[in-house]
Amino acid sequence: MKKVNVGLIGGGFMGKAHSLAYAGVPMFFWPADVMPVKHTIAEATPELAADAATRFGFAGSTSDWRSIIDDPDIDVVDIATPNNLHAEMAIAALRAGKHVICEKPLAHTLEDAERMHRVALESQTVNMVAFNYRRTPAVALAKKYIEEGAIGDILNFRGTYLQDWSADPNSPLSWRFTKAVAGSGAVGDILSHVIDLAHYLVGDIAEVTSLTKTYIKDRPVQSSGSDSLGNAKVDSGPRASVDVDDEVMTLVKFRGGAVGSLEATRNAWGRNNFITLEIHGTEGSIAFNYENRDELQVCFRSDEGDRRGFRTVYTGPNHPNGHALWPIPALGIGYGETKIIEANDFFTAIATGGEVRPNFADGYQVALVEHAILESAESGAWTSVPEVDRSRATRMTAG
Amino acid sequence: MKKVNVGLIGGGFMGKAHSLAYAGVPMFFWPADVMPVKHTIAEATPELAADAATRFGFAGSTSDWRSIIDDPDIDVVDIATPNNLHAEMAIAALRAGKHVICEKPLAHTLEDAERMHRVALESQTVNMVAFNYRRTPAVALAKKYIEEGAIGDILNFRGTYLQDWSADPNSPLSWRFTKAVAGSGAVGDILSHVIDLAHYLVGDIAEVTSLTKTYIKDRPVQSSGSDSLGNAKVDSGPRASVDVDDEVMTLVKFRGGAVGSLEATRNAWGRNNFITLEIHGTEGSIAFNYENRDELQVCFRSDEGDRRGFRTVYTGPNHPNGHALWPIPALGIGYGETKIIEANDFFTAIATGGEVRPNFADGYQVALVEHAILESAESGAWTSVPEVDRSRATRMTAG
Amino acid sequence: MKKVNVGLIGGGFMGKAHSLAYAGVPMFFWPADVMPVKHTIAEATPELAADAATRFGFAGSTSDWRSIIDDPDIDVVDIATPNNLHAEMAIAALRAGKHVICEKPLAHTLEDAERMHRVALESQTVNMVAFNYRRTPAVALAKKYIEEGAIGDILNFRGTYLQDWSADPNSPLSWRFTKAVAGSGAVGDILSHVIDLAHYLVGDIAEVTSLTKTYIKDRPVQSSGSDSLGNAKVDSGPRASVDVDDEVMTLVKFRGGAVGSLEATRNAWGRNNFITLEIHGTEGSIAFNYENRDELQVCFRSDEGDRRGFRTVYTGPNHPNGHALWPIPALGIGYGETKIIEANDFFTAIATGGEVRPNFADGYQVALVEHAILESAESGAWTSVPEVDRSRATRMTAG
Amino acid sequence: MKKVNVGLIGGGFMGKAHSLAYAGVPMFFWPADVMPVKHTIAEATPELAADAATRFGFAGSTSDWRSIIDDPDIDVVDIATPNNLHAEMAIAALRAGKHVICEKPLAHTLEDAERMHRVALESQTVNMVAFNYRRTPAVALAKKYIEEGAIGDILNFRGTYLQDWSADPNSPLSWRFTKAVAGSGAVGDILSHVIDLAHYLVGDIAEVTSLTKTYIKDRPVQSSGSDSLGNAKVDSGPRASVDVDDEVMTLVKFRGGAVGSLEATRNAWGRNNFITLEIHGTEGSIAFNYENRDELQVCFRSDEGDRRGFRTVYTGPNHPNGHALWPIPALGIGYGETKIIEANDFFTAIATGGEVRPNFADGYQVALVEHAILESAESGAWTSVPEVDRSRATRMTAG
Repeated sequence: MKKVNVGLIGGGFMGKAHSLAYAGVPMFFWPADVMPVKHTIAEATPELAADAATRFGFAGSTSDWRSIIDDPDIDVVDIATPNNLHAEMAIAALRAGKHVICEKPLAHTLEDAERMHRVALESQTVNMVAFNYRRTPAVALAKKYIEEGAIGDILNFRGTYLQDWSADPNSPLSWRFTKAVAGSGAVGDILSHVIDLAHYLVGDIAEVTSLTKTYIKDRPVQSSGSDSLGNAKVDSGPRASVDVDDEVMTLVKFRGGAVGSLEATRNAWGRNNFITLEIHGTEGSIAFNYENRDELQVCFRSDEGDRRGFRTVYTGPNHPNGHALWPIPALGIGYGETKIIEANDFFTAIATGGEVRPNFADGYQVALVEHAILESAESGAWTSVPEVDRSRATRMTAG
Repeated sequence: MKKVNVGLIGGGFMGKAHSLAYAGVPMFFWPADVMPVKHTIAEATPELAADAATRFGFAGSTSDWRSIIDDPDIDVVDIATPNNLHAEMAIAALRAGKHVICEKPLAHTLEDAERMHRVALESQTVNMVAFNYRRTPAVALAKKYIEEGAIGDILNFRGTYLQDWSADPNSPLSWRFTKAVAGSGAVGDILSHVIDLAHYLVGDIAEVTSLTKTYIKDRPVQSSGSDSLGNAKVDSGPRASVDVDDEVMTLVKFRGGAVGSLEATRNAWGRNNFITLEIHGTEGSIAFNYENRDELQVCFRSDEGDRRGFRTVYTGPNHPNGHALWPIPALGIGYGETKIIEANDFFTAIATGGEVRPNFADGYQVALVEHAILESAESGAWTSVPEVDRSRATRMTAG
Repeated sequence: MKKVNVGLIGGGFMGKAHSLAYAGVPMFFWPADVMPVKHTIAEATPELAADAATRFGFAGSTSDWRSIIDDPDIDVVDIATPNNLHAEMAIAALRAGKHVICEKPLAHTLEDAERMHRVALESQTVNMVAFNYRRTPAVALAKKYIEEGAIGDILNFRGTYLQDWSADPNSPLSWRFTKAVAGSGAVGDILSHVIDLAHYLVGDIAEVTSLTKTYIKDRPVQSSGSDSLGNAKVDSGPRASVDVDDEVMTLVKFRGGAVGSLEATRNAWGRNNFITLEIHGTEGSIAFNYENRDELQVCFRSDEGDRRGFRTVYTGPNHPNGHALWPIPALGIGYGETKIIEANDFFTAIATGGEVRPNFADGYQVALVEHAILESAESGAWTSVPEVDRSRATRMTAG
Repeated sequence: MKKVNVGLIGGGFMGKAHSLAYAGVPMFFWPADVMPVKHTIAEATPELAADAATRFGFAGSTSDWRSIIDDPDIDVVDIATPNNLHAEMAIAALRAGKHVICEKPLAHTLEDAERMHRVALESQTVNMVAFNYRRTPAVALAKKYIEEGAIGDILNFRGTYLQDWSADPNSPLSWRFTKAVAGSGAVGDILSHVIDLAHYLVGDIAEVTSLTKTYIKDRPVQSSGSDSLGNAKVDSGPRASVDVDDEVMTLVKFRGGAVGSLEATRNAWGRNNFITLEIHGTEGSIAFNYENRDELQVCFRSDEGDRRGFRTVYTGPNHPNGHALWPIPALGIGYGETKIIEANDFFTAIATGGEVRPNFADGYQVALVEHAILESAESGAWTSVPEVDRSRATRMTAG
């Protein structure tokens, strides 16, 4: 069993999720070829870093993320920082020969995403962008059904990501509302997940026509306190402009011929993490809602006569990764479990000399779609998405 | 109590629904100002017409629809025929001074719709296009909430109408798949309902960008037998081309500033009469699915702290038209009840000298949206929708 | 086509439902062997009766229900009055050679139910007790699945009927809360429906152990106004004791070996007409909730591997009575449709010389279960239910 | 921050769940007073134990569980073994002055449960029985609502636990089907959770009347392989008798005056971990289904007029333990999260010198209910449940 040392940059929400995943990987996936070791964590100050190390179970800590890059004992660099920092860190890590897992979206600008992709191609290491929702067992089951032809040729894909945590005009102006840091608003933060799911389940998007809206034009400047996503709620005090989108809607055409629509909004009161999929094929349909993530809905045309209807399948031991998870369906898949599966796939690729998806090429392809969506929202025209050559594996297997 | 004599043209699915409604109106809405009387029904042959009269409880029957127009005893002409016949019949009826209720969509061509609208404007009679889904009590409750400001300013409207009754490539080529009769496919047949709901709940649509698809390029030519929608299922024999759309997706901008998306498809296996609405406002959200039509989902921002969530409101005596329907919620609203309410609103307008909505002007406005959608699907560009002047009432109250 | 003249006693909620059904029967079930004719309606005063005749479409009216019994032109007597009046009316009608349809429960005392059953046995006429919920297409589909063996041998049945329309302590003391008129509370009013469903789907109940509760010990005496169920809401003024149960819970053993539990309550805030069934068999399970009455949930053990889950089947043309109802699933079954089906089955039995279920023997069997439940709630012991001999048809076919 | 050393006995499903919880406690609950340290794990053989230590992150391993009891460095003994081993291990640990967390049910016999309770009372240590489902945030929210009086006085409690993982007659005869090891079947294995939830939310159960069924009379003898719950599926080979119940149904009376019903079955095809609650109070209702565990349904009588309906509340930062979990609702609570909360409560009690519930006294009270249920199922009579004096804290705070 190979031990793989991890250096994690960032001790926020994502740092927590990744740390739990590293602890959980061997517990769930056993016997294991690979064991993640929580080696070093980086945070903004030595005190924050030491604190994070204790909390998340890392042996060491640092306030200088570059020391992680430079440490020859560290095999994996895990980037869980705001979007505008991804590129510099990831490129440094790749060039240092590290395997890299990077939170989504890949970068805050298309240019950075392209550079990250290019450097990843040149590296001989495993790279992954953490679009975790495709690891939900019910989503992986949808993929399996589609690959088995169980719903036939796909005609239509509809995906949404609706939230309300920032629907209040007095929720603060965090980095997520600032173009310079985040790159975009709902597009990069949440629609990117839907794009990844569309690519995973249907194939690449070729063309888009879109609209975006910024509903809340200014927000209170953030004070030192913070809410659960690192954002303080402030009802008074100075406000500053929001320069990113709150909502995006787009029609899409896939390269394979299917059509679809994608929507993401931060202003849907009552919707929390409402990631929904509806896929129509010539032989059946699939529906999914992450808010009830243990379930996949599937309808088979072949259920004839008086017995056709959507089946509600609760994922469990009979479904993707089910052997490793809980022993009966509906014991419960949470956010933690999706991240454990994601981490396991990443470390398995390291251990076996393989690849993992979505990699930086996939992340760059998503970034190209995001870019086309934003362009189309400006121009009002159907806009083509350039195609990343993903026939060439991003990781060369030795030979 | 005023007795109003009805002449009904067409004894199919819609003839049935309307006949039940005429019987039901006084039973539900009592005491009543008006009593519909089933005077004469027209069908294709004398035998069919006589049969329909017995079945649907009409006093008389005819194989010549024009005799209904010419009968001075008949006050109301009810048009429940294929789309391409609406204009001729409705215009004749209006010119004869009849009140007219016409099944949706108003007409199979924009030109016919415009003519119907124009003649209706000139007439002094009540005219209505039978977009019945806005009569669902839960939809009327959504309207009430919106008018009360309970969800604030509307930001976003999403509407779908998904079906599968013709998803089978061997379901027959009825008139609904023939442009010359139907005018369009999913656009006129089912998306028109969603457009009406959008207009009703949010206001007029100003611009659209769209795509359409014809998934099943040819279908078997229909034989004499027929299924429940009047279509025979034929697995062999000659096939002919389908020249209308099976699916339509569109992004929309409303005149009032909201945005939205509409979708309709006939190829969604497992979806039956899946008319869904999701509306986000600054103060709350509304969601509805006709497949569970007794329920309205509503989330209020003002439900603070640990108690916010979508409320599932079952419509009953406390809700629109509830006094007239069943005495407790969830006894059950069916298709029949929506048609009884529709008919009551129509006859009440006749009795009181008022108007009813949606009238022919509203139906023409819907037709203009349909036209823009089809144009945009061709051009790929955002397309404006001309505005019908509906400030001028279609019925002049005497003065 | 045989015309059958109906005399209806009672112009309240049930009178409305039955009248709509008589109008709807030929519209839905066509071609028809039989045509119900709304001949005479009886109400408390001549004015009320005349009003009801106009409203419900009856040719004649009377304030003397016995004149309906005595009228040789009337073939069917329909009893839609409070429970304590059923026996006298039904027995008179049966003895006069009328076919009788009687609202549920059969009677307000066990003795009356037994007499009605006995007289029905002696008559040569069709008799029916209007437990309409078994006519819901989804419930009839459950029955079909069970008869086909699709869920194997039944192990367990759970049925509930939960309401809240009288959960308010200030809702008035109508006849439904008075033992002398109603016989019992939730037991006769709503649990009786669940007992009928249990008998229909599983078979006769052999033994029960029960508890009952009266949560609201007194209610305001009813004034002249009335709410939707004929009950006025009164917040002040004199109150009187409630001497019937608000809630009943019971465990049951079926003659066939299955076990189960039944519950009914009037004090479940937020539940409206919450009639639920859950049935477990050796080869599958069935679940149903009348609040979403178009749907039946069914799980088949034979759906192996990664595809097992409850199927949500929307009833439509492929399901029981579907040819007669609406042409696609989920157009919508309401309370009206269940009553149309019920009426059609009743009139078809008259036309064809057959029987219909549930008949008075079935109603008496339900009354015996109710009686055992109330007895067990007193004694605390398991209590046996006598078995009505239903091998002897209640209607002799001529010969 | 106090480090607390844990010795875990048992490396199966529960060993996994607890190990993940120990890793997760500081990650979620931070800053922390206490840090669980995975000190030693015991399994059947040295090889299994060493393997488990690697997998679950324990520093040491042993094949002799008594060495954990004897180790003065170990503060906490965690018992995750079959039911019949609980008493010996727990009593030894308590007598050695350890804090003890024991998987549910407390013991396989009433006598053992009573002994465990008695020894726990004498010890000065924290003791807990791991009924984790009350830690589900939505269940804790239900508790909070009830304590705030939001649904008034509780009238009725209905709880179910339905499963199907052993509904197949060829699923093997594991220890869970053997009275000598498990004590009972569905009663101890799954109904015990429902009893705990009833006690938690409503108060103690005073009386029961019950029935039990064994549907599958024999099962294949288990071979060496195993399924996800440690049970191999065997289609042929020798079979042996099942001497425990597959299903239990019971009516209950609570000491506080409420009534209710509980049901558990292992033979509900399509139900997986279907733990449902429905609670009716004078001012509202609550409903919960663990299969959609992020949601709590609540209806408030005070939602008047046209706005009353069950609210679907997704638990998140605003709800119990929400500050520690994921930053927005519906990111997802899984089985893992419930165990992390449980562990945190246990360790917090250790750190603060307090108590935690459910403790062994609570576990014994549950065992007394189980015993009464089994007795009543034999006798057919209402059976009283003795009351454990829980006014005396099981842990004396020093003084």
